[in-house]
Amino acid sequence: MDYYSSQISRLIEEFSRLPGIGPKSAQRLAFHLIRMPKEQVRALADTMTEARENVRYCSCCCTLTDQEICPICSSPERDKGTIMVVETPRDLAAYEKTGKYSGVYHVLHGAISPMLGIGPGDIRLKELMERLEGDVDEVIIATNSTLEGETTAMYISKLIKPAGIKVSRIASGVPVGGDLEYIDEVTLLRALEGRTEL
Amino acid sequence: MDYYSSQISRLIEEFSRLPGIGPKSAQRLAFHLIRMPKEQVRALADTMTEARENVRYCSCCCTLTDQEICPICSSPERDKGTIMVVETPRDLAAYEKTGKYSGVYHVLHGAISPMLGIGPGDIRLKELMERLEGDVDEVIIATNSTLEGETTAMYISKLIKPAGIKVSRIASGVPVGGDLEYIDEVTLLRALEGRTEL
Repeated sequence: MDYYSSQISRLIEEFSRLPGIGPKSAQRLAFHLIRMPKEQVRALADTMTEARENVRYCSCCCTLTDQEICPICSSPERDKGTIMVVETPRDLAAYEKTGKYSGVYHVLHGAISPMLGIGPGDIRLKELMERLEGDVDEVIIATNSTLEGETTAMYISKLIKPAGIKVSRIASGVPVGGDLEYIDEVTLLRALEGRTEL
Repeated sequence: MDYYSSQISRLIEEFSRLPGIGPKSAQRLAFHLIRMPKEQVRALADTMTEARENVRYCSCCCTLTDQEICPICSSPERDKGTIMVVETPRDLAAYEKTGKYSGVYHVLHGAISPMLGIGPGDIRLKELMERLEGDVDEVIIATNSTLEGETTAMYISKLIKPAGIKVSRIASGVPVGGDLEYIDEVTLLRALEGRTEL
């Protein structure tokens, strides 16, 4: 890439290493950046380094936060007796966007995957078990509806049930607005199995 | 976005302001960044600010560079008598990738567009005319094959021709590997008009 001067090339190269950014987008980003006001570039750079320095795991639910305890765990309005277990902070955000869930979360940071060699010890399960020693009524398992997510859900449920805590799993089925014609067979069967009386 | 802590939210927000990065990609980038080694994040941030501080226009061809004169203009191996006029540094890079062009470039940083109120004075035309006072044999106009690019090409050619310098325009036609069935009519007509004898 010596048709750009070295600093532009380096910028393009570093951008293209980020996930989801191909060589074309990296070029576009680099040229956009070079045209941005200097203060804006400096602000963006500072936000990046600061976030990286300060963001850590919430000491309660293990989500990413810049405080010792995340805003959800420290809110007096959230029901600490209900814990929804999710794989990633993005899954947590997806449920938060619904605005209808008033319990708290536990972020595993992954799922059990024998294929990838990820065992129960590699996700934040120990931290979840420690929380269950407190006063917890229900654990809602909201791991993904994938092989890994299901394996993790089964594993956690077997681990928790003996403690006498209610364990539930979010429903699997036809997405709202989904046209049956285009839904895969496994989902159709799940939707049938999970039917509820009207 | 108070379901993320403030620093993560700010990072996501700043990322999503960049071109071609939607809210989902911005989230993915932010979480990727938070998991990157600290030194890598600092290096990326530094590359960004440094590039923004140091990159300027080549005082000869107006491309973006971190030197006074860009590597192409300062190379003794390039033929200074042939100038290819392009709209953007990315167009320059596209031709450089072919590895077959040995002349130099002139980057206009835009094209004439009466619709958008961009006139000849808003692009780097004055700088091109100044270069033509030197020893130039041919000006190859490689602006885009769009309305704006064509308008610019016509304008430049009318401006230069009286000076007795050869002016050419890159060919318009069916792209290599293109299937006639899927090519638009205007391109097909252009290809017919521009036919060469075999």
